[in-house]
Amino acid sequence: MLGRVNHVAIAVPDLEAATASYRDTLGATVSAPQSLPEHGVTVVFVELPNTKIELLEPLGADSPIAAFLAKNPSGGMHHICYEVDDILAARDRLTESGARVLGNGEPKTGAHGKPVLFLHPKDFNGTLIELEQL
Amino acid sequence: MLGRVNHVAIAVPDLEAATASYRDTLGATVSAPQSLPEHGVTVVFVELPNTKIELLEPLGADSPIAAFLAKNPSGGMHHICYEVDDILAARDRLTESGARVLGNGEPKTGAHGKPVLFLHPKDFNGTLIELEQL
Repeated sequence: MLGRVNHVAIAVPDLEAATASYRDTLGATVSAPQSLPEHGVTVVFVELPNTKIELLEPLGADSPIAAFLAKNPSGGMHHICYEVDDILAARDRLTESGARVLGNGEPKTGAHGKPVLFLHPKDFNGTLIELEQL
Repeated sequence: MLGRVNHVAIAVPDLEAATASYRDTLGATVSAPQSLPEHGVTVVFVELPNTKIELLEPLGADSPIAAFLAKNPSGGMHHICYEVDDILAARDRLTESGARVLGNGEPKTGAHGKPVLFLHPKDFNGTLIELEQL
């Protein structure tokens, strides 16, 4: 069921500083920042040969990463996103096995314009998992 | 400088349960567990098309992930490993930029038998970064 790792998301308190760190110190290719008000984040992509890192900074008052950064002020790894072929089939298999899908169970449109679901971190060793149908 | 994401490591309190979760619930291909006493972990690889996830369970009294699990009893994302072509050149570039390399600055032999270094998470937005020379 799990396909490629689409991205690993890292929440950061200062996107400009984090971008400089990945670009200048770690020597990676980084995108321009993109504000996604409907997702409550500004994002920079770190492009790597086999996947990407998403640096996420809160945007607006109701950012979904605000609580994480309040708990982890320096930032940290926030979630990992796996690609799936069929997100509804994946959801049904997961819920049948007892895993909890966050929200109302219906896929939302993610930051890449594709349907996504998030799984409860308590069901997966403290790791927030995003599934994305490409 | 940064190459492929070699793996994302997830520390887990119960490797057997975590393996079953990735294999049965998430439908991924998982390896047999490997005990690495010299690294203080038992590891299972979750093989994905473009990279792998390493599930790590503490092994022995001085496991390097024991403190992390004491703080995060359910487990969680522990580090991300990037491949580099030349680990000594990478180290020199990093230390010249002011980033802190953990330990004495000399590469150690990692879990895959290759030279590795770890970078201080406080210098990289709360993310523990491993560099591995393939």
